[in-house]
Amino acid sequence: MADPRFYPSSGPQPLAAVAAAAGARIEEGLAARVFRGVAPLAEAGPGEIAFLDGRKHLDALRASRAGAVLLTAELASAAPEGCAALVVASPQLAFAQVAALFHPHPAPVRGIHPTATIGAGVTLGEGCEIGPHAVIGDGATLGARCQVGPHALLGPGVVFGDDCRIHAHASAVCCLAGHRVTLHHGARIGGEGFGFAPTPEGRFVTIPQLGRVILGDEVEVGANSCVDRGALGDTVLGPGTRLDNLVQIGHNVVTGRGCVIVAQVGISGSTRLGDYVTIAGQAGLTGHLSIGSKARIGAQAGVQGDVAPGQDVTGSPAMPVKDALRAALHLRKLGARKPSAGSPGGKPRGED
Amino acid sequence: MADPRFYPSSGPQPLAAVAAAAGARIEEGLAARVFRGVAPLAEAGPGEIAFLDGRKHLDALRASRAGAVLLTAELASAAPEGCAALVVASPQLAFAQVAALFHPHPAPVRGIHPTATIGAGVTLGEGCEIGPHAVIGDGATLGARCQVGPHALLGPGVVFGDDCRIHAHASAVCCLAGHRVTLHHGARIGGEGFGFAPTPEGRFVTIPQLGRVILGDEVEVGANSCVDRGALGDTVLGPGTRLDNLVQIGHNVVTGRGCVIVAQVGISGSTRLGDYVTIAGQAGLTGHLSIGSKARIGAQAGVQGDVAPGQDVTGSPAMPVKDALRAALHLRKLGARKPSAGSPGGKPRGED
Amino acid sequence: MADPRFYPSSGPQPLAAVAAAAGARIEEGLAARVFRGVAPLAEAGPGEIAFLDGRKHLDALRASRAGAVLLTAELASAAPEGCAALVVASPQLAFAQVAALFHPHPAPVRGIHPTATIGAGVTLGEGCEIGPHAVIGDGATLGARCQVGPHALLGPGVVFGDDCRIHAHASAVCCLAGHRVTLHHGARIGGEGFGFAPTPEGRFVTIPQLGRVILGDEVEVGANSCVDRGALGDTVLGPGTRLDNLVQIGHNVVTGRGCVIVAQVGISGSTRLGDYVTIAGQAGLTGHLSIGSKARIGAQAGVQGDVAPGQDVTGSPAMPVKDALRAALHLRKLGARKPSAGSPGGKPRGED
Repeated sequence: MADPRFYPSSGPQPLAAVAAAAGARIEEGLAARVFRGVAPLAEAGPGEIAFLDGRKHLDALRASRAGAVLLTAELASAAPEGCAALVVASPQLAFAQVAALFHPHPAPVRGIHPTATIGAGVTLGEGCEIGPHAVIGDGATLGARCQVGPHALLGPGVVFGDDCRIHAHASAVCCLAGHRVTLHHGARIGGEGFGFAPTPEGRFVTIPQLGRVILGDEVEVGANSCVDRGALGDTVLGPGTRLDNLVQIGHNVVTGRGCVIVAQVGISGSTRLGDYVTIAGQAGLTGHLSIGSKARIGAQAGVQGDVAPGQDVTGSPAMPVKDALRAALHLRKLGARKPSAGSPGGKPRGED
Repeated sequence: MADPRFYPSSGPQPLAAVAAAAGARIEEGLAARVFRGVAPLAEAGPGEIAFLDGRKHLDALRASRAGAVLLTAELASAAPEGCAALVVASPQLAFAQVAALFHPHPAPVRGIHPTATIGAGVTLGEGCEIGPHAVIGDGATLGARCQVGPHALLGPGVVFGDDCRIHAHASAVCCLAGHRVTLHHGARIGGEGFGFAPTPEGRFVTIPQLGRVILGDEVEVGANSCVDRGALGDTVLGPGTRLDNLVQIGHNVVTGRGCVIVAQVGISGSTRLGDYVTIAGQAGLTGHLSIGSKARIGAQAGVQGDVAPGQDVTGSPAMPVKDALRAALHLRKLGARKPSAGSPGGKPRGED
Repeated sequence: MADPRFYPSSGPQPLAAVAAAAGARIEEGLAARVFRGVAPLAEAGPGEIAFLDGRKHLDALRASRAGAVLLTAELASAAPEGCAALVVASPQLAFAQVAALFHPHPAPVRGIHPTATIGAGVTLGEGCEIGPHAVIGDGATLGARCQVGPHALLGPGVVFGDDCRIHAHASAVCCLAGHRVTLHHGARIGGEGFGFAPTPEGRFVTIPQLGRVILGDEVEVGANSCVDRGALGDTVLGPGTRLDNLVQIGHNVVTGRGCVIVAQVGISGSTRLGDYVTIAGQAGLTGHLSIGSKARIGAQAGVQGDVAPGQDVTGSPAMPVKDALRAALHLRKLGARKPSAGSPGGKPRGED
């Protein structure tokens, strides 16, 4: 169960409400049965809802004491006795919806904290919550029901749409954002890109960074991640794109819709991603690349060239996954082998 | 010598006090000799204490002008004339203790800065120091003598034990912490994990993250590091675990006691570490792994499988250190060799 | 064109002023022609100035509608009709100067925001701007015309020279900085280094970190980057050194003049860099290394040994670039090759 100190509960809820949230049909006789909340399959009790994350967890399901389980039709018969089977197309999505039924995200508490600093000509939509010590610069515009956390900074002239959540210590300058955008703690949006020119005397002169950051609807930027503004023109994160924590996005990077960028990834300036590109943790992309839609880039990959749509690459330097796995296998074999004066690396022998 | 603008000194101190702090015995005739502070072996003068960090620095010891040196019994005879030998089991540990004698960590200055924002129902232990613009949420509980720096945020309901240090700009939400826990500047504890489910239309729906972060006694989290809270259940850093700067800890990661995690490491969700695991800089661990106690993971390693207790791995993908060194050696040899149409990669030929 | 909500313009400007800013000579007849601003070659219109970044963009130049272009003498004849050629030694540098003519960095607005907290004995130079909720500790000294952003923290006793820019949420403690130093959003200067000694009982005792951070003139530290202070002695970034975002600098690292350190690089304790060293993104350097002047370290490189002046290395473990490229080529070939029981890893066999 979620700790009530941190997660107030709307429960108990009747199964009818649970099924409605999940988009599942249930036997009418069960509709009034009440549940307290959600839990993992292995820990759920009779008053809790769990979900089955694929066939590999069938054993856990059979042993589960959960009162109800969200699962797909083909696995529904595996639910043990006493556990109501809630059949859905995506148990994970349904679980998200049911969890949000029990623990809805706290609605904004309308008002401006007395310690907040609001600039001249700021427009706040209906029902915004502005937290302690938040700073909103002159001429900024926020839509309805935005939550701006403690110490957050929205710079002069920025625009955010409705239902945005700017968590504590996040900052955004030179930024235009859509609806339902979330910036997590300490995210840095719109900082100066890394651009400078050397002088003949060996000094560096900053090239004025005169662009913006455009965040599409439902973009999320993780804790302490950085998205630099464009040098000229814009850095763009397409609608639904999600960045995990400690990600670096260089100036003039452009992503399409629904890209997923895992923690500690770095993308250098002017690289462009299509839609639904996924990049696993700690991968790095050099600048000015083109990454096709639905391409998948492996953890710690070092991408130095374009990637075609739908292609899976990994390794540093990156290559197609099949090749990288083979190369890794060879490398392991090399590792298991005592080096000698001979092949493959030593003094050439015979005709080699 | 430490800059007195930043490090007030308790000195001068008699050698008797130094020896007591270090747990060293000294000749009685030296007990009253006074010292001003600590310094590296190469720079210490007659009024300063240095330490010998192993046999490889014996030459530096012989040339040193230090007035006293902390060293092990077997190397004690190497101290030059005029340099008092303070024999201890661990010179490094003794040095830490002697340095803290001269420059004790500033005690909290009891009180709440007038610009701080303290929520309803907050419990502060005896002697806490709450800095300017700090924010403590409703119902939070802090033990005795905690120091909360400027702009730090402790969210509603969090619990911290005695003698915790929350440095400037750090934030902790959904967190239960033990005694003597330290969060360095900009550390982010308890943010939402990276969990979401796709809809049929290609949108992503956040899976409510309903867990907590549990920090054991004496845990330290480095500057701008991020520890996400559990999705369901908890993310746990065991007692004494230390994270360097810019580290990423995913939701539901669990570490044992005394793990050491160097800068820019990333650990994905639900991976579990035993006790005293060490992970060198920039290494990455995928999710749902089990890393045995006292395992050691090399810098930039990419760990994609379980690691047995006491095992040393490195490389990306990670393999046992001995194998990785050999593989690297082979790779260097390959690098030194002109590629040809033949082996090792091309069409296989005859005797290769 | 730069968005006027974020970038107020000094334009229009006569070409004479543009040429003066760029150090270019122009035909007298053109001096009075006016321009509105700067733009990329492909987007610039007749009222805008672009620059030619080398021969590879000659086609873009020929197709450009720009009213004027900054370029080198040898390419000047390629400017299309109606596009004034402004001949300069470095078009990139000249572009930086012209962009700054149209969009000068906003001068500090002299004054201390009423929500800022200024300690006892603070010295502020002429014309400083201290933003909302900024905190300046006792005894700190700032030169003339410094800008301290919202929520920034300058700790007790720190010293900054003239014309420094401390952006929002940045913090600096135990730090002495020169003139024209810039800390970007959330940069962390002077935190405790990662130093501790184990006790016989398996606890870790922090070794007091008693050094400072010294930042030379014109140093820049990127968003959310961390520079730990020295353990004993100092961490030093030499004049003109630039750190991108999310960089980690360990205690007692010393860099020379004009080093360029790209995003997410990590440098471990006590490593020393000469002048004009460049380190590409996500590279890692272990501690106590010596990196010679003008050495260049590739993206994601893992440097475990000294690097000679002027040497280029890459790969993990790092090797000379030429060797690393060859090794990568071999690795690609290995990847393209089906593994077998035979070579290159197993027992060599005749017919393989």
